[in-house]
Amino acid sequence: MSNDDCIFCKMAVGQIPVAKVYEDQVVLAFLDIGPVSDGHTLVIPMQHFEKLDDCPPELLGQISSRLGKIAKAVVDATGSAGYNVLCNNGRAAGQFIEHFHFHIIPRNAGDGVFDHWPSHKYAEGKIEKIAARIREKL
Amino acid sequence: MSNDDCIFCKMAVGQIPVAKVYEDQVVLAFLDIGPVSDGHTLVIPMQHFEKLDDCPPELLGQISSRLGKIAKAVVDATGSAGYNVLCNNGRAAGQFIEHFHFHIIPRNAGDGVFDHWPSHKYAEGKIEKIAARIREKL
Repeated sequence: MSNDDCIFCKMAVGQIPVAKVYEDQVVLAFLDIGPVSDGHTLVIPMQHFEKLDDCPPELLGQISSRLGKIAKAVVDATGSAGYNVLCNNGRAAGQFIEHFHFHIIPRNAGDGVFDHWPSHKYAEGKIEKIAARIREKL
Repeated sequence: MSNDDCIFCKMAVGQIPVAKVYEDQVVLAFLDIGPVSDGHTLVIPMQHFEKLDDCPPELLGQISSRLGKIAKAVVDATGSAGYNVLCNNGRAAGQFIEHFHFHIIPRNAGDGVFDHWPSHKYAEGKIEKIAARIREKL
């Protein structure tokens, strides 16, 4: 299934050219044209789903099973020290193309990419309450 | 396989208590005690691997196939507008526990979490060169 208005669907079928790094029946991987670091790669399912949780579990597994070998190739080719795998879901989370995708982002120490990690502590008893609410939804 | 020095391996076998949200034979999911947003959940494989690309593809698929339903429950329970799925690999990428794990981070518009996205443009011809180098590694 594809979506006529989706730029990633057009890339998946070759209607819009990409700097391709990998392709098979399940995923297409290509370089982000607005990278946060050189070699920043997008891995998209060939099939259109808006968000990760819209994708059936078995297919999500097939898509994700490709991430390791693609990430390793990205790291080897760029000589980077590490990498982030990131999937933004919803505009509030930074998703701007509504076709589920993973970012693979090469990283080096002190590169200034994603150095903001605003962690806090839960008030006493709150963590157990939230965990219980999530368990109820599962 | 587990690693005697790994805190996540100890959590996986119940030696260290967690605010558990989900568990099966493949993964354990629990709340991060230093969350960047309420409901920030970690999904770890029961088996020890340092990085995502150290995990065999089939098992990586099995682990990842659980992410959608856990993310949906986290979003439903917290009433958030979106979520990030993030896997940091290597200290340079923000990995501090050397047992591969996914973060599921509930997000809301304007929450100030991860609002830094330092994208740039490639110099002419560079994107094709990098894509070719990655393809050679695949």
